[in-house]
Amino acid sequence: MSARKSGGRRGQRVTARGGLQQSPRRALRRGYAPIEVIDAEAVERIHAASLQILERLGIEVLLPQAREILAAAGAETGANGTRMHLPAELVMQAVASAPAEFTLHARNSDNDLRFGADHLAFCAVASAPNAYDSDGGRRAGNRSDYRNFLRLSQYFNIVHLNGGYPVEPVDIHPSVRHLDCLADLVTLTDKPFHAYSLGRERNLDAIEIARIARGISAERLLAEPSLFTIINTNSPLQMDGPMLIGIIEMARHGQAVVITPFTLAGAMAPVTLAGALAQQNAEALAGIALAQLVRPGAPVIYGGFTSNVDMKSGAPAFGTPEYVRAAQIGGQLARRYGLPYRSSNVNAANVSDIGQAAWESSMSLWGAVMGGANMIMHGAGWMEGGLCASFEKFVIDCDLLQMMAEYLQPVVVDDDTLALDAIEDVGPGGHFFGTAHTQARYQSAFYAPLVADWRNYETWREAGSPDALQRANAIYRRALEEYAEPAIDPASREELQAFVAKRKEEGGVPSDF
Amino acid sequence: MSARKSGGRRGQRVTARGGLQQSPRRALRRGYAPIEVIDAEAVERIHAASLQILERLGIEVLLPQAREILAAAGAETGANGTRMHLPAELVMQAVASAPAEFTLHARNSDNDLRFGADHLAFCAVASAPNAYDSDGGRRAGNRSDYRNFLRLSQYFNIVHLNGGYPVEPVDIHPSVRHLDCLADLVTLTDKPFHAYSLGRERNLDAIEIARIARGISAERLLAEPSLFTIINTNSPLQMDGPMLIGIIEMARHGQAVVITPFTLAGAMAPVTLAGALAQQNAEALAGIALAQLVRPGAPVIYGGFTSNVDMKSGAPAFGTPEYVRAAQIGGQLARRYGLPYRSSNVNAANVSDIGQAAWESSMSLWGAVMGGANMIMHGAGWMEGGLCASFEKFVIDCDLLQMMAEYLQPVVVDDDTLALDAIEDVGPGGHFFGTAHTQARYQSAFYAPLVADWRNYETWREAGSPDALQRANAIYRRALEEYAEPAIDPASREELQAFVAKRKEEGGVPSDF
Repeated sequence: MSARKSGGRRGQRVTARGGLQQSPRRALRRGYAPIEVIDAEAVERIHAASLQILERLGIEVLLPQAREILAAAGAETGANGTRMHLPAELVMQAVASAPAEFTLHARNSDNDLRFGADHLAFCAVASAPNAYDSDGGRRAGNRSDYRNFLRLSQYFNIVHLNGGYPVEPVDIHPSVRHLDCLADLVTLTDKPFHAYSLGRERNLDAIEIARIARGISAERLLAEPSLFTIINTNSPLQMDGPMLIGIIEMARHGQAVVITPFTLAGAMAPVTLAGALAQQNAEALAGIALAQLVRPGAPVIYGGFTSNVDMKSGAPAFGTPEYVRAAQIGGQLARRYGLPYRSSNVNAANVSDIGQAAWESSMSLWGAVMGGANMIMHGAGWMEGGLCASFEKFVIDCDLLQMMAEYLQPVVVDDDTLALDAIEDVGPGGHFFGTAHTQARYQSAFYAPLVADWRNYETWREAGSPDALQRANAIYRRALEEYAEPAIDPASREELQAFVAKRKEEGGVPSDF
Repeated sequence: MSARKSGGRRGQRVTARGGLQQSPRRALRRGYAPIEVIDAEAVERIHAASLQILERLGIEVLLPQAREILAAAGAETGANGTRMHLPAELVMQAVASAPAEFTLHARNSDNDLRFGADHLAFCAVASAPNAYDSDGGRRAGNRSDYRNFLRLSQYFNIVHLNGGYPVEPVDIHPSVRHLDCLADLVTLTDKPFHAYSLGRERNLDAIEIARIARGISAERLLAEPSLFTIINTNSPLQMDGPMLIGIIEMARHGQAVVITPFTLAGAMAPVTLAGALAQQNAEALAGIALAQLVRPGAPVIYGGFTSNVDMKSGAPAFGTPEYVRAAQIGGQLARRYGLPYRSSNVNAANVSDIGQAAWESSMSLWGAVMGGANMIMHGAGWMEGGLCASFEKFVIDCDLLQMMAEYLQPVVVDDDTLALDAIEDVGPGGHFFGTAHTQARYQSAFYAPLVADWRNYETWREAGSPDALQRANAIYRRALEEYAEPAIDPASREELQAFVAKRKEEGGVPSDF
């Protein structure tokens, strides 16, 4: 049975086979104007500064092929042979060919996602080296946990796509890890997914797996983005070989590229927000320009990840006031160029510290959603500044994401909802619970939480005073029980298995391990 | 030594006598446009519906004096003798005389607060019947806890005023409770405060205590609002005697009145948000109109508290998507009338469930701050839908409030902050930590949290894996140790003591207890 069948009709809260009550699958749009932290003039100053950085200081481009593409478009090569100076015109002309919106296709077309404008989608946590749940504690990433996170991504309607391996399965040999992981991704889920850019062969394998999973031709795949990659530039101002290959191969195949400089203010970027954002902008524009030079119109997303470090320890901090403002200014910059925007739901709390995780995540989410982000990475499950993926945090985040989704639903103001008749019927001093107006609507009137516990103190105490971590543990286990693997076309499955087997026989990808 | 002296210079982070590091005392302004959840036409529809409610259905006014004031202004008395039908013109003309902004004076003028426009101030938790900390557990409100909460309100710069007794000290006899509590408020703190409207004598006692504490004349007090009261109408559409007396006496003395209907959708208001808000608006406008009829220009604040109930149990829920949207639409309505706006930092989590408390509070805060609230009640310490004031939550909230305050600080974009020279000095692949640009700014560049713990997993684990609740416990105890009673003019103190003694001798206020 397809998990999709439990998704229910739009606008209705659903109970999957009598199981957990979760929000329905639905496309999200942010109907509210995004928050503008700085004025248009300040946006222009950051824009101008970043163009100046790219032209005067330049950026290290550590791949001959990429340098050739940039030089052919008019970039100057620096004295060291790898520094490229990008004229403002080159950058702006290239960026102008990027689409303002595009659709990312899933093998189940019900899960296709639109990026750009006010569209909004949430990704699962990605790339954590460790996994955690309160029973098993913190452990190194492994395939069992990896697969369980994928099942949660598939199960929860509010998780729209996977943005990388939720946890790194280090028990799979690196030479074939991408093959097993991608095969899991396209069989345990039928939502859009991400592929790491760790060398040309891995990119090409991922593109082929996406094509097989969708059962389409290479020509059609070229026109229909069906996977994405994230490029975190080596800030400051450096792009290494695998990053550049990722941009080139993915763009060449019409697949989506997200350029997200990792500009931690005070470490890899200036300590001042404006400077960190100017640098973020320079790096993002450079990567996007390269993608557009490879294939004008290739789908790209402007990524922002600027945060600050804890100046006491040098540790990265997330969900801080600096992070929130940077996320929202990042949105202003992306809109300046008419590009889709990526932000994140991040925090720096340690594994069992759900309180700090909750407030830092909430800050990040408001920064992202009201910053106008279209793709929100690490939406569910991220802890410890990315060093750990938590099963409990995954479902707590699903609650937060569902709340944000519900918050974005339009408030209808009409005769029916103004309810003047009901107010008159009830009259001063009365109670609305029993009225026909209430009875007709109460089951779906309000958001029903996943984890929040609204029992009164006495009842909650009798139940053993369960806190959010404990409740979330029970919920994630139940979600795994209720998970059903989505249907896949048998021919696609067979082709996929054959491809993975063949590539493994060939030895996968050479690795240093 | 005055706690004020530890406040430090504006814009600087301060360490109070080598103690806790907290944000500086500063006046807050929201430089960002508030979020508009509904369009102007929908605002007008709610406005029109609420005027229709007041004119056609009317509102129960359970005090002859109030009915006389309304009737003299043109209201019709209903057949039952207590229902008043308020013509739209009456309401709108009266509301038009309310000031868009006013200053609430503290006995320490450094703590004066401006309400209206984009000014923003945070209150401590108010009116909880129970107190909690993780050592002592949950207990009935008492004076010792009451006084400790006041000390925390005074200690933390981010708490701008007290909005009622943080916890109800039931160990003080009700006939004299207000005298002891108000005396504590004006001696343990020197910030603005609230007085309950529980009968004329209590209102008058509070007004006199505010006058004594400030050492000013009655005439000056009339021109300088120095305390405020909150009126929670008996929703739906009813105001009882003490509420109406509170409005009349406070307005008559030029003191601030906050009208906050308690419109829980599905219980005391329609299950639909638009209807609940139409009713909230009707009740708020009725109370504000009465205040203005008593004294045109009397300072008033439009209060919004619309939330929803858990339809499974009937329990109030807070920090929900419905709450957030209602808070932000409430701001749109208040701005429609050019009135200052009050919202709240609320949640329904049980005492030790800091995770849920954190995410629900965060949602409430974003609703309030970006809804354009000027006064945010229950800013620090509220738990359990208001049934419990928590010492740990108090300092966690201070962290959240400090973060929101820091988020609202303008991002400067100029040559200095764009840091092009630093970016060039560091160059591609370098590190910013050691640069002069960083070194000159790192100490104050970023928000320093109170409770958040950014240590890495290993260090945090070696320290005993303290979660937010445990860390907050240590911090609130330290704040109490560091607290210093603010200086008070000896003449004022003497006059205050004499007044309280005299009123106690007179038996305080008759009570039913």
